[in-house]
This record gives sequence, C-alpha cells and structure tokens, in this order.
Amino acid sequence: MTDKYIFEWHDRVRDYECDIQGIVNNSNYMHYMEHARHMFLLSRGVSFSGLHEKGCDVVVARVEVQYKCSLRPNDEYITKLYVTKEGPRYIFHHAIFRKSDMKLCIRAHYVLAALVNGKLATSYPELDELLQ
Amino acid sequence: MTDKYIFEWHDRVRDYECDIQGIVNNSNYMHYMEHARHMFLLSRGVSFSGLHEKGCDVVVARVEVQYKCSLRPNDEYITKLYVTKEGPRYIFHHAIFRKSDMKLCIRAHYVLAALVNGKLATSYPELDELLQ
Amino acid sequence: MTDKYIFEWHDRVRDYECDIQGIVNNSNYMHYMEHARHMFLLSRGVSFSGLHEKGCDVVVARVEVQYKCSLRPNDEYITKLYVTKEGPRYIFHHAIFRKSDMKLCIRAHYVLAALVNGKLATSYPELDELLQ
Amino acid sequence: MTDKYIFEWHDRVRDYECDIQGIVNNSNYMHYMEHARHMFLLSRGVSFSGLHEKGCDVVVARVEVQYKCSLRPNDEYITKLYVTKEGPRYIFHHAIFRKSDMKLCIRAHYVLAALVNGKLATSYPELDELLQ
Repeated sequence: MTDKYIFEWHDRVRDYECDIQGIVNNSNYMHYMEHARHMFLLSRGVSFSGLHEKGCDVVVARVEVQYKCSLRPNDEYITKLYVTKEGPRYIFHHAIFRKSDMKLCIRAHYVLAALVNGKLATSYPELDELLQ
Repeated sequence: MTDKYIFEWHDRVRDYECDIQGIVNNSNYMHYMEHARHMFLLSRGVSFSGLHEKGCDVVVARVEVQYKCSLRPNDEYITKLYVTKEGPRYIFHHAIFRKSDMKLCIRAHYVLAALVNGKLATSYPELDELLQ
Repeated sequence: MTDKYIFEWHDRVRDYECDIQGIVNNSNYMHYMEHARHMFLLSRGVSFSGLHEKGCDVVVARVEVQYKCSLRPNDEYITKLYVTKEGPRYIFHHAIFRKSDMKLCIRAHYVLAALVNGKLATSYPELDELLQ
Repeated sequence: MTDKYIFEWHDRVRDYECDIQGIVNNSNYMHYMEHARHMFLLSRGVSFSGLHEKGCDVVVARVEVQYKCSLRPNDEYITKLYVTKEGPRYIFHHAIFRKSDMKLCIRAHYVLAALVNGKLATSYPELDELLQ
C-alpha cells in the first residue's frame, strides 16, 4: 500500500554504481536506503549523532532485502519508507521504485534497536515520534 | 555449526570502508560476501559470465543479513559459506568472523534463482555441484 | 573564473561517503566528478556507449586533483566544468563548490584521449562540440 | 626504477569495483593506493590517528594519477610506493602493477602536508622516518 509511506527521496543512478552486468550492484541499494533513511531522520530533526550524545545508540540488528527489478544507468528512482514497532524494535520499511513507470525494484526491512547506555531500551521518545 | 562451511576467504578491513562511527558501513559487508561468493565459484571453475553464455542467468531474489558485531579499521576477517537448495532456489549461507578471536560478526543468507532462457529452472547441473 | 563553466550539477554528500575523520573520503570526489561529467555528456546528447558503437573510445589518460576544503555530512555541493583541447587531448576542467558559501573544495583536470579504431585521433566531431 | 620502492601491497580486483566497461572504475585505484599507503604506515608503526592525537594532521593537498593500463575482474595487482620530500611537502609515489606480467597500470603522486596545531610544518619526525 503506497499510502503507508511517510517519506520519499528522489535520486538517480550513477554510472559507477553499476557493475559489469550493466545493472546497479546489489550492495548499492543498501546505500540508497541508508541515504533515504538519514534524509528522513534529518527531515524530522533527528540525527544519529545527536541521539548518541544523549546516550542512545541506534544499531541495525537485521536487514532483509527482496530484489524485484534492477535499476540501470540513468534510471531515476524514488525511495519510500515508513516505520513500525515490534516489541522493543523499530522496523524501517523501505521500497525503491523506478521513476519512469513506478515499477517496484526493491522491498526491504531494517530492524533497528535502541541501546540506552548500552542496554536494550523498550522505547525511546524521539524514535517513537518517527512512527508518525 | 562451523563444519558446514565448504569455503573461506581471508581479507582485512580497508579504512575507506569504515564510516563516521569508525566501524565498517553496513552495506560493505554485502561487498565482502559477494567477493567471497565469487572467489568460491572461481575455485569451483564456475563463472557467472560463463553460465550466462550458456543461457543460464543466476539472479539474487532475496538477502537476509544479521548484524552481530562490527568490524573496525585494521581488523582481519574470514568469510565462510556453504550452499543448500530449497525447491528451485539455491541458498548461499554466509558468515563473517573476526579473525583475532573468531567472533561472529555477520550471518547472512542469499537466495538465488537460476533462469534458463528467462524461465525459472528447477535445477542446473553446475549449480548443483556447488552443493558439494 | 566562474564564467568559464558551461555545466553544473547539484548534489549532496551521502553519509556513507564520509570516512572516520568525518569528511568525504578523497577518492569519492572522483565519483562526484565522473557523475557530473556523464550528466554533462547526457545533456549534450553524447554517451560513451554511443561513441563506442561508432568505433570511438574515450579513455582517461591523466587526472590531477587539488584538495582545497573538505565536504562534510549533509553538505550540498555544486560540481562545475568546462572543456578545452590541447593537441589531440580533451581536458575536462572540474571544480566542486560547497553550496552554502560557494567555497572552492576541489579543482581537477581530467585529460581524455579519443581512440578511433584503437588509434589516437587528433579530433572527433561529437567531442569537439563539447568545447562549446 | 623499481628499486626505489620501499613497500608493496598485494591484492586482487573485486568484481564490484569494475564498471559497465568491464574494467576497474578510475576512482577505485585511489582506494587501492590509500589502502596500500595505510598498510605502509602501519608497517612503520605510524597511524594518522596517532599523529592527530599529537597535534599533527596529515592532509592531502594534491593528487596526480596517470592511467596506463586497466585492471580487470580477477586480476591480481601489486601496489608499490616510496616517499620523498620537496620543501615542506611529503610526496608519496605510487605505482600499481598487474601481477601476471608486471605491466604498469597506474602511476600516481600524492602530495601531503603536515599541519602541526593547524600551521604548515616544514618537517615532522615520524614522517621524516618514512623517507627511509
């Protein structure tokens, strides 16, 4: 459901991100999603470094990526995301669409945990606000 | 179980692979595993390009990565792997260990499918041999 | 002289492009300039692959990069360029400015040669048009 | 002259470092040279972070790279280097050779300056030792 998404970031493939097969290398989609995630946090006034200074470290525990369709040189793409919570964990749900036809290229889930002073926290105010 | 692994690749962290937090960026572990996977295939005399020329394309359908412990500058690491099959899909099971103490850093599963002339194949001889 | 520039590309630093020192890794500026160069060629209707199909290969012979000021996370930047010719060689002159204050970060020169059917060409029509 | 070199680092091309043309992307040679340079410093017991803590920052002022021959997937290569001094500047001279036939692929010069407490230093003991 497209309407679940609360943030989107537009960008385009850079040639050096493509490999010998002429498609974006599998690993680079993780860079795309990290960048979109950081832009989202920034748009909400939250920064990992700011959280860290308050004693809250956000760590990636698990990532699952499904590859549906490959992006190619010069393709423009849109990375969308929304956030849910499962127990103490925050789940970032990402999808990458090819802009020309909005075809789904990537679907991914990032499971993040908040460590407050090194201990797993069941919730954290600034992260809870990201749930919208 | 360590004894399941049928291939290992030794390497060391390069400083530029680390990010502002002083640890290897999440995405770069996928590069490490891709490189180990290609070295494994090469050790068995199988190449993606060679398969392609015979009309067999191996595509990544899904990846799941669990982050256990971060690698840091100058760390040496060992990427291990073994392969299983589930229905028509080949699963590459990867683990990355820090060499100094063999601590598990990453556990990951890559689900690959073989497309022969564009259609999902239930099996492919050269890939079946990778099952050992 | 700013007015020499005939193309500019706006982008922003991605966190994963920064290294342990908290600044963009030296090598990544080359990625920024390659991307701007390809966007420039695209804007002129020229593609490396298209040239290749006509038997003209454009190869990088030499690069010189001067580092003036480092870009940091979240910085927006503008890559500008113009092209000159020296004998048979095409020189791409790049500069990267920090958008917030237009401070010069990088100045670079890429020396390219056109090989037509494997032999150094003294000129090539589609490249000559890039000289404006 | 090969005998000028005082350090060498052996490594092999990773497939993801190659681009659509099937050759190592121009920018990645800078990663290769940075890694060799850091391995050299490490072999001499010098670390950038250690120098920084003593108030000495080593900054790259200029890089010049000549491209002689492209590396390809599976190529093994050797990065060699030596260091000279010109006035207050330390010059790292790099060359990358293809291991199979020792063909020269890259020749490069990195001009580094030592800033002690933010001011250009004419020399610095630990860096002078790198001159052999």
